This record gives sequence, C-alpha cells and structure tokens, in this order.
Amino acid sequence: MEPKDIFAERISVEEVEEGDQLAPKFDSEGLIPVVTTDYKTGELLMHAYMNQDALAKTIEIGEAVYWSRSRQCLWHKGATSGLVQKIHEIRVDDDQDCIWLRVDVMGGASCHVGYRSCFYRSIPFSEEAEGKSPITLNFEDMEKVFDPKKVYGDAPNPTRL
Amino acid sequence: MEPKDIFAERISVEEVEEGDQLAPKFDSEGLIPVVTTDYKTGELLMHAYMNQDALAKTIEIGEAVYWSRSRQCLWHKGATSGLVQKIHEIRVDDDQDCIWLRVDVMGGASCHVGYRSCFYRSIPFSEEAEGKSPITLNFEDMEKVFDPKKVYGDAPNPTRL
Repeated sequence: MEPKDIFAERISVEEVEEGDQLAPKFDSEGLIPVVTTDYKTGELLMHAYMNQDALAKTIEIGEAVYWSRSRQCLWHKGATSGLVQKIHEIRVDDDQDCIWLRVDVMGGASCHVGYRSCFYRSIPFSEEAEGKSPITLNFEDMEKVFDPKKVYGDAPNPTRL
Repeated sequence: MEPKDIFAERISVEEVEEGDQLAPKFDSEGLIPVVTTDYKTGELLMHAYMNQDALAKTIEIGEAVYWSRSRQCLWHKGATSGLVQKIHEIRVDDDQDCIWLRVDVMGGASCHVGYRSCFYRSIPFSEEAEGKSPITLNFEDMEKVFDPKKVYGDAPNPTRL
C-alpha cells in the first residue's frame, strides 16, 4: 500500500486534534520527528525522524524504520547492528506533527556510541549551573552495552558538527 | 549570564559525543527539539523546541521554557494555564542535537487540548493496520484534565494545518 493511501488530508484543526483519522504533518523537508522510548522502563532511547515512506513501513512491519538525515536514506534500525526495535505501540500527538514509538530493543542498546540510551549525560540546572561557563555535563550511564567499533566497523559516524 | 557563555563550541565529534562540555546543536532556524516526559511515570508529555535563550532560561530557572514556533516568542510553559513544568533532570543526547526534560507538571496536564499528555491517540500497526485507508486512530486517554476554553479563553489555537 502506498503511503498516500494510509494518511488522511489535514482538513481542519478540530479533525486533526479530536478526530480519529491519521493525518500526520511532515515539515518542509518532508520529515516528522520521532520519540522512541523503552516499553518496559519508559526510558527515552532516541530522537529521530521519519518521512512518509519510513512511517508507512514502520506501520506495516511493526519495527522502527527511520529516515537517516546524514545518509539520506531509509534506515531500518538494527539492519547493521542487529539492535532491532520491536514496536509495542505507536502514538501521535495532538496536532499530529510528532510520533512516539514504544519499543523493545533487541540486544538492549539504541545508541551508536554504545550506550543503552542516547541520553547518557545530564545538564546541571538552577544553583548547580550558576556561574558555569561553559556548563559541564554529568555522565549518568558509564557502561557501554556494546563496542561501536566491533559492531559498525569503519562505517562513518553519523554525528555532524 | 548570556547563552553564549554557557554553551561550548562544537570542536570535534569525539568531544561532542564523549566529552563533558555542553555544546548543543541548533538547526538552521536556531532551534533544538525537546522531549518532555513525566518524571514519575516516564510518560511522554510533549515534544517542543527551544532556541538558545529558551535553553539558557530553562537551565537558569529550573522550569521549562520553550520557543513557540506558532507565536514566535519565548514560551514559559504554564504562564497562561498555571500548568508549570518543574524540572527534575535535563539530559542531552549523543550528538547534542536533542534535549530531554524530566518534569513534574503542576496541575497534571501538558496538552493544550486538555489531556494529560499530547499523545492521547495510538496508531494501529502490522495486522491491525492492514488494508486500512486511511488508518483510523485509537483513543487511549478519553478523559480531559481541564477545559481548554476555560483556561485559554479566546487565545488562538497553536495547531497549524
């Protein structure tokens, strides 16, 4: 089935917010942000993007398929690393411009740096941040689940400065 | 303190990913996406954006301050509705292009439509989605926490088609 067949048109604010038609909003680059959390723990694993094809494919196969902005291609998460994200639930927000995936991660890691979650550092705030220039991050997760070099080999790092 | 003082420059991929300097990446519009979850339940409450000033202000006061793309101004969440988001923890992801806020919500709601979370509808997938054209959403949360008309009055709805 083509993506255009499963998505409804965005006719009115009321229908988008209170209705039951899936009418996602893709931005000027054709992308929608995606928040992925661990189904069991609620932990935030990663933040990524989908285009129409990625969302349609995710809905079809029940595994997370994103759009890789660095590689400019569909990205079936885990195709290289084996760390597939099996979907338990997909949600959409009020104005349908964001997708929430609740997943089980095969192999227990979602971050290309090797940590379980991409969000392994915290930012101090209020008194703890006062007078810091620049602010220093705290490591909340010190233990890598896998060695990226072994899993990804010489594949280019997706991080862009 | 000025935002430029608390943010470090993005010098190398290694420093951004493995270092302890806060060096967030703002996109071509000067924005960084923000994921906000409930500190106690882990529930995803909302997805929004910050610019440099919003992130600096959030770090300073320990309450969520976003950039409103529809109103094009700083948006101290709860200033109108009273539903302030008190911050327990701020995290940043591997390549520092996304912020995660773990918050307590005063009043128990984060969604301008009146629900606790913006993500009150789910998208069926795999067998459940087969042959649906367009796909029909399921309501997972039927109970509004507040009446938006009473709280926001005639303020314009932020949802854009």
